Amino acid sequence: MSKEKVVLAYSGGLDTSVCVKWLQDEKNLDVVCVCGNVGQEEIGLDAKKQKALDLGVLDCQVLDLRDEFSDEFLTKAIAANSMYENKYPLLSALSRPLLAKKLVEVAHEFGATYVAHGCTGKGNDQVRFEAAVKALDPELKVIAPVREWDLKCRPDEVAYAHAHNVPVPEGANDNPYSIDDNLWGRAIECGHLEDPWNEPLDDAWVMTKNPEDTPDAPTYTEIEFEAGKPVAVDGKKMKLSEIVIALNKISGDNGFGRLDLVEDRLVGLKSRECYEVPGALTLITAHKALEDICVEGDLLKTKIKLEQDWATAVYNGQWYSPLKNALDAFMADTQKFVTGTVRLKFFKGNCHVVGRKSPFSLYDYGLATYDRDTTFDEKASAGFIEIDTLSLKTWAKVQGPSSAAAQA
Amino acid sequence: MSKEKVVLAYSGGLDTSVCVKWLQDEKNLDVVCVCGNVGQEEIGLDAKKQKALDLGVLDCQVLDLRDEFSDEFLTKAIAANSMYENKYPLLSALSRPLLAKKLVEVAHEFGATYVAHGCTGKGNDQVRFEAAVKALDPELKVIAPVREWDLKCRPDEVAYAHAHNVPVPEGANDNPYSIDDNLWGRAIECGHLEDPWNEPLDDAWVMTKNPEDTPDAPTYTEIEFEAGKPVAVDGKKMKLSEIVIALNKISGDNGFGRLDLVEDRLVGLKSRECYEVPGALTLITAHKALEDICVEGDLLKTKIKLEQDWATAVYNGQWYSPLKNALDAFMADTQKFVTGTVRLKFFKGNCHVVGRKSPFSLYDYGLATYDRDTTFDEKASAGFIEIDTLSLKTWAKVQGPSSAAAQA
Amino acid sequence: MSKEKVVLAYSGGLDTSVCVKWLQDEKNLDVVCVCGNVGQEEIGLDAKKQKALDLGVLDCQVLDLRDEFSDEFLTKAIAANSMYENKYPLLSALSRPLLAKKLVEVAHEFGATYVAHGCTGKGNDQVRFEAAVKALDPELKVIAPVREWDLKCRPDEVAYAHAHNVPVPEGANDNPYSIDDNLWGRAIECGHLEDPWNEPLDDAWVMTKNPEDTPDAPTYTEIEFEAGKPVAVDGKKMKLSEIVIALNKISGDNGFGRLDLVEDRLVGLKSRECYEVPGALTLITAHKALEDICVEGDLLKTKIKLEQDWATAVYNGQWYSPLKNALDAFMADTQKFVTGTVRLKFFKGNCHVVGRKSPFSLYDYGLATYDRDTTFDEKASAGFIEIDTLSLKTWAKVQGPSSAAAQA
Amino acid sequence: MSKEKVVLAYSGGLDTSVCVKWLQDEKNLDVVCVCGNVGQEEIGLDAKKQKALDLGVLDCQVLDLRDEFSDEFLTKAIAANSMYENKYPLLSALSRPLLAKKLVEVAHEFGATYVAHGCTGKGNDQVRFEAAVKALDPELKVIAPVREWDLKCRPDEVAYAHAHNVPVPEGANDNPYSIDDNLWGRAIECGHLEDPWNEPLDDAWVMTKNPEDTPDAPTYTEIEFEAGKPVAVDGKKMKLSEIVIALNKISGDNGFGRLDLVEDRLVGLKSRECYEVPGALTLITAHKALEDICVEGDLLKTKIKLEQDWATAVYNGQWYSPLKNALDAFMADTQKFVTGTVRLKFFKGNCHVVGRKSPFSLYDYGLATYDRDTTFDEKASAGFIEIDTLSLKTWAKVQGPSSAAAQA
Repeated sequence: MSKEKVVLAYSGGLDTSVCVKWLQDEKNLDVVCVCGNVGQEEIGLDAKKQKALDLGVLDCQVLDLRDEFSDEFLTKAIAANSMYENKYPLLSALSRPLLAKKLVEVAHEFGATYVAHGCTGKGNDQVRFEAAVKALDPELKVIAPVREWDLKCRPDEVAYAHAHNVPVPEGANDNPYSIDDNLWGRAIECGHLEDPWNEPLDDAWVMTKNPEDTPDAPTYTEIEFEAGKPVAVDGKKMKLSEIVIALNKISGDNGFGRLDLVEDRLVGLKSRECYEVPGALTLITAHKALEDICVEGDLLKTKIKLEQDWATAVYNGQWYSPLKNALDAFMADTQKFVTGTVRLKFFKGNCHVVGRKSPFSLYDYGLATYDRDTTFDEKASAGFIEIDTLSLKTWAKVQGPSSAAAQA
Repeated sequence: MSKEKVVLAYSGGLDTSVCVKWLQDEKNLDVVCVCGNVGQEEIGLDAKKQKALDLGVLDCQVLDLRDEFSDEFLTKAIAANSMYENKYPLLSALSRPLLAKKLVEVAHEFGATYVAHGCTGKGNDQVRFEAAVKALDPELKVIAPVREWDLKCRPDEVAYAHAHNVPVPEGANDNPYSIDDNLWGRAIECGHLEDPWNEPLDDAWVMTKNPEDTPDAPTYTEIEFEAGKPVAVDGKKMKLSEIVIALNKISGDNGFGRLDLVEDRLVGLKSRECYEVPGALTLITAHKALEDICVEGDLLKTKIKLEQDWATAVYNGQWYSPLKNALDAFMADTQKFVTGTVRLKFFKGNCHVVGRKSPFSLYDYGLATYDRDTTFDEKASAGFIEIDTLSLKTWAKVQGPSSAAAQA
Repeated sequence: MSKEKVVLAYSGGLDTSVCVKWLQDEKNLDVVCVCGNVGQEEIGLDAKKQKALDLGVLDCQVLDLRDEFSDEFLTKAIAANSMYENKYPLLSALSRPLLAKKLVEVAHEFGATYVAHGCTGKGNDQVRFEAAVKALDPELKVIAPVREWDLKCRPDEVAYAHAHNVPVPEGANDNPYSIDDNLWGRAIECGHLEDPWNEPLDDAWVMTKNPEDTPDAPTYTEIEFEAGKPVAVDGKKMKLSEIVIALNKISGDNGFGRLDLVEDRLVGLKSRECYEVPGALTLITAHKALEDICVEGDLLKTKIKLEQDWATAVYNGQWYSPLKNALDAFMADTQKFVTGTVRLKFFKGNCHVVGRKSPFSLYDYGLATYDRDTTFDEKASAGFIEIDTLSLKTWAKVQGPSSAAAQA
Repeated sequence: MSKEKVVLAYSGGLDTSVCVKWLQDEKNLDVVCVCGNVGQEEIGLDAKKQKALDLGVLDCQVLDLRDEFSDEFLTKAIAANSMYENKYPLLSALSRPLLAKKLVEVAHEFGATYVAHGCTGKGNDQVRFEAAVKALDPELKVIAPVREWDLKCRPDEVAYAHAHNVPVPEGANDNPYSIDDNLWGRAIECGHLEDPWNEPLDDAWVMTKNPEDTPDAPTYTEIEFEAGKPVAVDGKKMKLSEIVIALNKISGDNGFGRLDLVEDRLVGLKSRECYEVPGALTLITAHKALEDICVEGDLLKTKIKLEQDWATAVYNGQWYSPLKNALDAFMADTQKFVTGTVRLKFFKGNCHVVGRKSPFSLYDYGLATYDRDTTFDEKASAGFIEIDTLSLKTWAKVQGPSSAAAQA
């Protein structure tokens, strides 16, 4: 009788390699590996696939997800100016649901009963994986080996690997940080950074140059958007994945895109995180500037608040959820006229918007200019103020600072 | 029989000097001038006072408001991380209600029937002045000469001045921009900037150096807060007005604090504005970083949204209003434990938080570290995820992407 | 040379009849009348049309707008559980933008330069008319005779009518109230009601019976919805306009649907209003109850807040606006699975939901029942609580009521 | 050596009686019982205390918490118009944190290591108890026997009771419902009600009469508030606990205060609940009506949204939390002028506000009346509308329904 099957989110690193063995030995399952390319830095996918096959997995599927990631996930993140707690443009929270979707698809293909991931029990990613899997197939069961096993630290894992003939990557212990990265950026945790009073060391940063080592002259770049979606850089039409890569390069070379912050994890604790998000931060900066001229003011103010709801939902693993769907519908409606060009100036870690234009711009020179005698009817302002402050005036008489009530 | 009196917000510039004469001649009023020092750049107060007296005003009161401005207004702005439309830390919106308060006090002192201001009919400041006056004394009447008279442009005003023996400041036409400034920063409008595609020229900036001309080595600064209020810079206790001045200098010398944006004015139009807010932006950056470790996550998320309500209310002239009062009560409650130190690194236009610490920090190393075997119970996460995603799982079965309903 | 034309929103009452004459005489305009039937009570449309023609108008178009009103406006109001300030289901705010749309269409048909309405300067409707006209054709000019002329009260208008051969409706002065009504309900203002301490008199109510005079046995009714839209009453499929009429009858006969409240008008004052909204309130009550089982909890909570934004925008005349459009997109997405049946019990002024069911119900008996040994894993709760309260526990140690900090 | 101690929230019913024995036998703990009187219906406290002592507990403290419950908890609930998901005025969510506070106090008094409660693993109350305990003393450990033991249903518990000499209350199996009640109302769950299509049976209701059996003449009642707090009924000053009791009687006798709804539990499932909240609903209805005249419109709209945040936080067990504290600060500030009288009319299940008055009323007859020639300047409205709709007009030209862009 054949064994039950599990589809594992496999990165080729130590954790998920040990997971393969553990699922085979402890759970008596046939393992199918899925290795998704969402643009992470060093991938060596062929070697990783061979390593999985050597461990006796049923299959190891290597999937290039960069365009699906860009077109389905980053586009929505840009529309929502994705910024968790108004400071962090999301990263793993965007790639995990896509990886989970692929796990579910492969599970259906192989008739698997389980999916598995290599996330720890202290992070957000376990929730994002499992929430996405449940949303896409509530009948699939999830195994989280790292949460379940008794390997308490990296040396334990290395020992287990040696004992079970799992190859240990050279230098597996060399990187002092825990890293997750994709097209949209790179997260750096652990080590020296776990004291939020410590300044990050130079070795933390890979995608972005130290501003001290960047060009002494500014770099200007223009980004074009159509209906909220980036479509060209410096006049050259490109697909979104290429645009992100191009901007990661331009911004990173100019030292822009480093974040150092403390955020609130879903599991109830505060965590110090450093991020390199040069392309992401550039695109969001430019997109906001274009919205400033293309989105009407009352809508803009409501959108700014809902952006926080969107980012929190996605951070918390609700990519596939009715709340996120409805927020996406709102966001999509706001993007119809977000078409135009933003001009950016990079210089030694800075990225400043220095120009924006749009065929649908709501900026109206005739109204805005302080030259008098224009289309704006200044006499109307007296009436406007009369009515606009009427509620305040009524309040002032009865309850305000100079009222009898307040003085009592 | 004595004339009725008007108290005028007087800056000593061309506009308000002409206002003095116009109020005397056209409205047949006795004028009392109030000239408030909120930290604006070049003030030459004695000369301005003399000029007013030469124009025959009843009195010209020159008031040093810098500490009241800092302690009553900036403190609240910092607590609320004041950022209108999530991009602009407010400026005139903070000084206008204080000036209005002084107008009302002087009006009561002199038994005046009117107050007057020199704002145009296209801007926000007219509303802020009048709303504040009505809130503080709903019986006082407001005159806005610039909105009422027929002087359509600056040359008209100059001609009126010459015709009525009002001295015209030398170089009155030299500055290509319209400027408003105070301790908290400097607003630059008009001229070349009225096309939002134009990059600001070098002559727009006064408080901040061009990043290209700043020191080649980083500057580190530490700011201390007590209950949300800045109390020291680099270990030196100072009053808030001094802290703002010190940080304007440090940040400005390092080229930090320039903003270039399009904002939505209360009067319904979009306006391109440049701001220099070196100290303001530094303090808000540092304050947010301290809140990140001192304010609990659910509260922080709610506060981020209410900060937008606060900034919009203040931008719109509701400083003295029941809504703003209640929001202040919320904000004040959040600041009780925002005590600690933030370390900043300035370099060529950048200001990065590189460290934060607090005796009330909610960052807990034992919980956050990815070292295993700590105080965090990873086994609990399975149960957490089970319940946390239960609603999503139920939805998935009935309405989700793989449900029969969705496939229909 | 032919005169310029104006299209007038014409009701046939005294106000708009006088408007016709005033526009002809004072403004020297050719008048086209538009009289929209949105379900108001007594219409006598033929006579009103003749009356307009007798006054010499170019044309008087009588339009049956009941289905367009139901399908385009009430459907969206139901989706958003439209309740201004959480107490009032809107009424005139829903019909005015439709009437404005017709004015604009007719203006284009006749090549008119102006549209006109008979609203006073103290109410919301003037804003709603003018905002809608500007949104639909920003070049059209609006005339508001009642705001402009010098007829200070009803007797002035009657005198003007007599002087200018405008027929005065018999009993024009008899109704002590000012009334506006349409399919969705009836607004009653003025007279005795202007003191908010006065209880409304019996003569205020027309659509709803006094509960004391209603049947002594309960009436049960079932309403079916499909994707948020009412489609049947008591098993009988009907179009929405018929459903509203049917429920106005059932609810009104049972004395349900009276509101007596003080609301905040857009023009900054508080206004005491009585409303009869039997069908509207019934449909919103039923729709909410169905949403309670068909809309996921996190989405429901976000929707409840955005319903307030929707109602405020519509109340303030923003029916045609980018904010309202984006909110509608959000609302529409939430309604996909709001399909099912709600059972209501009417009795002497009460309307209680006593049953709700849906093929897409998220209520899961197996999870909800307190019988043990079901699908709900109670052991998971311990882990859930551990993580869910972790942030609170960390706070408690450092800043909480029993912490050293709090005791200091 | 003495045993460790546990303080148990003891109701005297079957569940918590079995808990006593189970904690003694299975956990080897000395038990201290705390039995709080928060106004629940039948208490027979002496007998319950004796029963606990007979089971060998160290002590059984019977505490009258009705005034503390009213003054500390209900006052805040009234200020926030507490309505979870805009439909349910909270009940257990208000009493649990007070009981938890008493558990912690008694635990400190006795030097106990543990507190325990009798809540199941499927409900909200377990979270509320444990969250409150952690907030008040994060070092105390919590035991939840019902979640831990293997008694799967009521008969299991009865069998355990018989086997361990725990007296089983007569009729313990008679009530088909699960009930929780306190001063603020009564929750009814389970049995027949677990199908949300079933109408509640008559036997579900205790505090409220069937409207069919209520007086045939209306009852009028006046409630006075001072700064948001109820202080008198029908002119008679009473403390709040007495007011709630008096209104439970008046409202219940008139058949008002029944709720039948489906709500979203914190643990991720939807639950059908019936509530009797006659006094609670009456007070909130009256309080809202008074706020309508005493709270300025912009503040009212913001408060309505934050009321939802308040209710969700409290529902979810965050009574003692920094978020709830800050929201309370906001709410308290809004209540300063909520002073006045509301007149209510009860009749056969209805409770209608028919009058409201306040010395601080913001309703201004002179402004609101449609009589012309009053204090309201109608001419100002034209200017107001000009500016208020300017943003919309600009949008209409470029992006609106009739713009070239929209037609493309």
